[in-house]
Order: sequence, then C-alpha cells, then structure tokens
Amino acid sequence: MTVAVAPQFQRESASRVRHVRLALAGCGVVGSELLRVLERRRDELVDAHGLDIEVVGVLVRDVNRRRDVPLDRQLLTSDVERFLETPADVVVEAIGGFLPAALIARTTLERGTTFVTANKALVAAYGDELSATATRTGATLRFDAAVGGGVPVLRLIDDALGGARPRAVRGILNGTSNFVLTRLERGATFAAAVADARQSGFAEFDAKRDLDGTDAADKIAIVAWAAFGISPERVIVRRRSLLPDPARLVRVARAAGGRLRLVAECELVNGGRGVVASVEPVVVAADSPLGRTTLEGNTIEIDNGWSAPLHISGPGAGAAPTATSLISDLLAGAVPPRTRIAPPVSVEDERTFRWVIGARLAPKLLSELLERHGVPVEEACTIGTESCATTARLPLCDLRQALAILTAADRNPVAIRLGAGVDILPEAAR
Amino acid sequence: MTVAVAPQFQRESASRVRHVRLALAGCGVVGSELLRVLERRRDELVDAHGLDIEVVGVLVRDVNRRRDVPLDRQLLTSDVERFLETPADVVVEAIGGFLPAALIARTTLERGTTFVTANKALVAAYGDELSATATRTGATLRFDAAVGGGVPVLRLIDDALGGARPRAVRGILNGTSNFVLTRLERGATFAAAVADARQSGFAEFDAKRDLDGTDAADKIAIVAWAAFGISPERVIVRRRSLLPDPARLVRVARAAGGRLRLVAECELVNGGRGVVASVEPVVVAADSPLGRTTLEGNTIEIDNGWSAPLHISGPGAGAAPTATSLISDLLAGAVPPRTRIAPPVSVEDERTFRWVIGARLAPKLLSELLERHGVPVEEACTIGTESCATTARLPLCDLRQALAILTAADRNPVAIRLGAGVDILPEAAR
Repeated sequence: MTVAVAPQFQRESASRVRHVRLALAGCGVVGSELLRVLERRRDELVDAHGLDIEVVGVLVRDVNRRRDVPLDRQLLTSDVERFLETPADVVVEAIGGFLPAALIARTTLERGTTFVTANKALVAAYGDELSATATRTGATLRFDAAVGGGVPVLRLIDDALGGARPRAVRGILNGTSNFVLTRLERGATFAAAVADARQSGFAEFDAKRDLDGTDAADKIAIVAWAAFGISPERVIVRRRSLLPDPARLVRVARAAGGRLRLVAECELVNGGRGVVASVEPVVVAADSPLGRTTLEGNTIEIDNGWSAPLHISGPGAGAAPTATSLISDLLAGAVPPRTRIAPPVSVEDERTFRWVIGARLAPKLLSELLERHGVPVEEACTIGTESCATTARLPLCDLRQALAILTAADRNPVAIRLGAGVDILPEAAR
Repeated sequence: MTVAVAPQFQRESASRVRHVRLALAGCGVVGSELLRVLERRRDELVDAHGLDIEVVGVLVRDVNRRRDVPLDRQLLTSDVERFLETPADVVVEAIGGFLPAALIARTTLERGTTFVTANKALVAAYGDELSATATRTGATLRFDAAVGGGVPVLRLIDDALGGARPRAVRGILNGTSNFVLTRLERGATFAAAVADARQSGFAEFDAKRDLDGTDAADKIAIVAWAAFGISPERVIVRRRSLLPDPARLVRVARAAGGRLRLVAECELVNGGRGVVASVEPVVVAADSPLGRTTLEGNTIEIDNGWSAPLHISGPGAGAAPTATSLISDLLAGAVPPRTRIAPPVSVEDERTFRWVIGARLAPKLLSELLERHGVPVEEACTIGTESCATTARLPLCDLRQALAILTAADRNPVAIRLGAGVDILPEAAR
C-alpha cells in the first residue's frame, strides 16, 4: 500500500562483503598514505562497511624508488597502458595535473568503472565532460578530495542544504598559501616561509600554483559547479596573485588594521541569474573566521540566507585528511549530475569594495594622485618606505586607471580588497 | 570486464520524476516552515531532484487554530489513527516528545515507509529499536534534523570521516541555553534572557530541558551512536545542569578568566573500549571556538587525530535551518545500521580536569576547607559576596566530599569544569 521513498540510496547490508579491486594512480604523499590507511583499517572496512579492498595495481613514475608502503612491489608499474589494462572495480587518481590523469579518467569512466580523484585541475577543466561520461556509462565519479582536503566542502553543499542553492560560498581553499601567509605574519622571510611549507609537506617544490591563486581558482570553480550548477570550465574566476611579494601585501594589510588572506569566493548576483567568482588577497579582521584560520587550515562559509552562515574548518592539506576524503568517496556513491538546465552565467565582478592601495611615494601625494583619477581616499599613512591609502567603496575596474599611472611612474602599487569588518584606521593615521 | 563499485548509492536521474505523498506530524514552528519551503521550492525540487512532493495529511493538536501555511485545511486532522491511515510514502515527524511520536514512528517503519524525524528524545530513547525495525522492513529512517539544527553533525560523522571512528566529538548542541548564557554574559537578568529566547522563537514555554542539559544529553547520545556504534539508550551521559542559577555560573566563569558554555562531549577512553559522555557547564577561553559561539549558534568539533580537528558551526536552532535539514533527509536515503557488533561501553568519567569552585565564604577559608578534604587549590579570589577557587587536575568524584560538606554548611557551592586553554588567573588574585 505504501512505497518507501528514496530507496535509491539504500545501502547494502554490511553482512554481505563485496570484494573490490582498487587500482591507484600516483603514490606520492596522498597515494602512499591511502595505501597505509587501507592496510591499517582493512578489518574494520570489511566488518563495518562490507568492503574488502584489494589493491591490484599502482601507477608510479619510478618503480625503483624506496616507498614506505605495505605493498607487493610487483604491483607497481610506470606504464600507463599496462596500468589501464589491470582489471579493477575502482580507480583512484592521486597524480595531479592533466597528463596522464585525463586519459586515466576518460578510459576508466568509459568502461563504466568508478573513478575517484583528488585532482582539482582535472575536475575544474573536464568535470562536466567526465560527469556526462559517467552518466552515460553508469559509472560513479567522485572528487570530494579535490576541494578542502579533510574539510568536506562539496559534500556539505551536495547533501546538507536541502538541495537548495546557497547565496554565496567563500573561504580559504589553499592550505599552502595560508601556511606561508601565517609564517610571514609571524615574522618569517618569504624564502623561509616557503621552505617551511615544503618541509612540513604542504608545498610541492614549485608553490607557484598555490601562491598565484591558480589552485584555489580551480577549487572555487568546482564549488560554483556544486553550488549553482554552472559547469566549472565556464566559471570565470577573477584571480589576483599573492606574487611577487606576499610579505609586502602582509605589511600593507597590517597597516590597514587586519590580516591578509587569499580568499576564494563565488556569489550569486543579478537576482540569481549571474555568478561572480574570485580568488584574491583580502584584508580580513583578525578575529573573523577567515582571520583566525592559520597555517594549513581551510575554512568555508556557506551563506544560505539563514540568521548566520554555516562554517566549516579543519586541516585543508596533509596526507591523512586527504586520504580520509578519498575513502569517504570510496564508501559513497555517485553524485547526481551537477550541471543544471538553466544555471547562472559567469559575469564581471562589479561588486564594490573598499580597497587599500600601497605605493612608493608620500601619503599626501598618493592621496592626491588617487583622487585625481577618480578614486576617493578615506585615510592614508606611511609604512616604512611606502604609503598606503584606503578608498571608498568602488569596483576594481574603477581603480585600474590610477593603478596604471602609478605603475608607469614606477611607484610599484598594490591594491588589496578590504573585507567586511575591517574598520580599524591605519595606526599611523590616528 | 570491470564492475562499478558503490552502485548502492546510484541516484535515479532527475529526468524521472517521482511523486511522493508526504504526511506531516506536527505543524509548529518547524512543521509549518517545512510546508512553506516545500511550496516555495516545489518547481525546483521537481526539476533538479525529480521529487514531486504532495502533502497528503497533517497531524495537529487543534485543527481550528489559524496557521500561516499554504495548505488545504481539509488535510488537517487531530486524530492520530486517522493520520496513520492516510496512505503516504514518507512520514515526517516534528512533534517532539514520546506520545504519539513513538507510535507514529513504529507504525510507519513497520509498514516499510520512510520516516524522517527531528525528535532527539525519541531517537535517543528508541533509536536502536527503530533502526532495527527499518532494517527488517526495508524502510528508510533518518534523523539528521534531530541534532544541530542546520549544522549537519550526523551527516559529517556518517559520511565525511572515511567510515572511521573519531577520537572525540564535543561542542554546543543546545541553541536555547547558549542564547540565554550569551544574554547573561551581556548583562541581562535570567528572567529577561529566557523571555528574550522565547520571543526570538528559540525557547519553548518551558526551557527546563534546554537549561538542565537533558536536550543536549539526548543529542550527544545520538552523536555517540553515530560516532562509535554504541546504542544511544546505552550511553550514560554525565549531565550537570545550568539551573537553578545560570547567572551565578556565568559570574564564576568570568572570575576564572573565561566564558561559561554548556558543553556536550563524547570521547573514547581505555584504548577505544570505553566511551565517556557528558553535558556540563565548562569554563572555556573567550577566543576558543566554543567561547566564540554565541546566541543560538551550535558548534561541533570532531577530533580525528589529525593536525587539527574538524569544526563546523552555524544556526543550531530556528525554523529555516531545521526545515532544511528535514529536506536534506527527504533527498537522501537510508543510513546503514549504526550499532556495531563490538561497540565501546559507557564507563564512568574518570578523566581529570581543573575545576573552579564558588561558595559563600572567605577565599582563605574556602581554600582551607577544600585542601582539608583532599582538593588541592591553585588560586582563590573574591567575587561579590562569594569566593571562588581553582583546583589542580582531578576527577569530579574527588570533589564530591568537599562539595557535600560545603552544601551541608549552607555555603551553596558550585563546581565548574575548566576547559583547556583557560589559563588566565582570577583577576582578583593577581
């Protein structure tokens, strides 16, 4: 007489154990931690979740390298073709980059095989195509580990908002750059801060993608996909780098009364028909959730139009949290196709903000120059060999002429957005 | 050749629309908000999620009361039998309490029909039985809305920890008492603070269950079930009330250098074989995640043994967040049976803490009295007409004799646990 709703998600009883052949592409920091966790938790995964996972192949760059993993070396291969020929029920990709990750993703999903990845660049560039392939072949595609490390950002958006679109999602999505910024705040030099991030296992040899916002831009595009249904490759992210001189940005932010954070954000505008997305340095209040996020922490704020936003924070980088996220994906199943029929379109970010401008000239001259080019100045002060001035609210485009003039005159300007709640006057101006 | 893993969760394509008959028990603050949201988001739920929800019956106490809900009054009934006879695919329960909630839950699940509830008392008392019934009949049982309001605590534990047990879960799980404590901190009287909570829709007429920790104790028992697999009715929660005089506790906490919060907690002990659970007033550091949680906010910290815990916070009470949580449950499916084969057992909480003792006598005398009964004192000071003293680390049971003596002598003692990070000396003692 009555029919149960939602049996689409009915989990099989754990009493029936499924044998799962897992092929792993990539055995770096994350991949090797995954192998260790799967070995350590083998019995528990069988007993509590009915999953008997057997690793059947591991793709590595160098089969002869020493590895601290519980693995028969026979399973290692550096040959992508051979790796793809290994019969597997699930392929986990933890290589990063496009080659050979995209080939592995496509081949796996075309076969209808589950594909789980931590690769944000891959998902940001090909997510929609891979999702369509998965839908067509009935394969499962999951990529929770691509955003937030151990902080389950995508899962919250997918599963905990009652299927509704949030108004905005913003936060700190790159642990490496946040680690570097925190170290700079505490007095380290840029070189020492980056070396320290590498030492701690948070930065690759080349941290450029982290520091220039490319990594966070990939992630916020994926977040916008989950939140608003706009295909990730269609999200135009306004990306402004911390490079070349993050230490200077940190100094200017302090002069403006706050802390510097690399903030990633996507927000509905134009009554929900448009979406703006950005990754840029922002001066935030020291006691705000973003300001309190230090070192490799990630934090995300989801604005649902409630009395307060939903906040989630935790370790955004590191092997153990990311491996946990991959296992969560192994235990879960397919997400529904995210791209909607009439999603918002990416539009130019015309939102107005207050800005702080730093440049190498006297404060009075800086104010005059800015005002002359139509930029209303609120306060100005001197920090060391340069000056900084805060502006009235205006969109970034309105700053551009003034910044171009300062650049041409070799005044080396920087412009940083002032976040909400940073109302402290520059100390020198008081 | 290859078989997809995890198709157990395969969601049906949204292109196939399912008609779902929903019966709602309870049309108070949460129930009526649910009806409004279902009406407002009708098209979106069909288009994006393939769910065409029709409300087929609503159980209310008084069919004649005016209600601001988009509903044919013919659907209202105050007769439980008649309500249960309405053919439905899903029953949502938002009444609270045991009667008739338990009857509705059992009848619904016995029929194999989906049952979604926000009722923490029901789940804490009968969760294991209801879950077993659901497993037997193939019904779906969900209760995310029972804990955390809009903060998806259970969903995080179930889905985002890679199926592993956390070490500990702690936080603020009762928005009403936190609202009252925040108001008291800001100078309100107890009566005014409670009236304000009622006015804001966070407290029922009788806020006793909120203030004495009963509500939070139900929730932490459910959290322990999700986290550790121990059946919720077997979790012994050490519950210590904010009543009769929360304002006094707030004063003593301030004298001890922190803020008072009603902290709910469950933690593995004895190498994972035991679990302790508590709801009690704790002095926390003002700038800690718990101390920063104000008004109706809920916050949860999940300790996974990572470099930092996972934190989630947001509106823990209020109609919109709770209704959202119910809809998330409608869109999801069954959770696996939570009770494990060899879960930890509830054991006495012998963990040691520092405590702050308040009593009506001179600080020197208070120190002497405590020391005489084996309680080592660190600091003592005077606040108004009473004194307070902080102790060395010891379990609660070691305090009991001294507290009994003080009570017998009409010294009206209070003992509050000192949280980690509260290291500030009492101001008067410096």
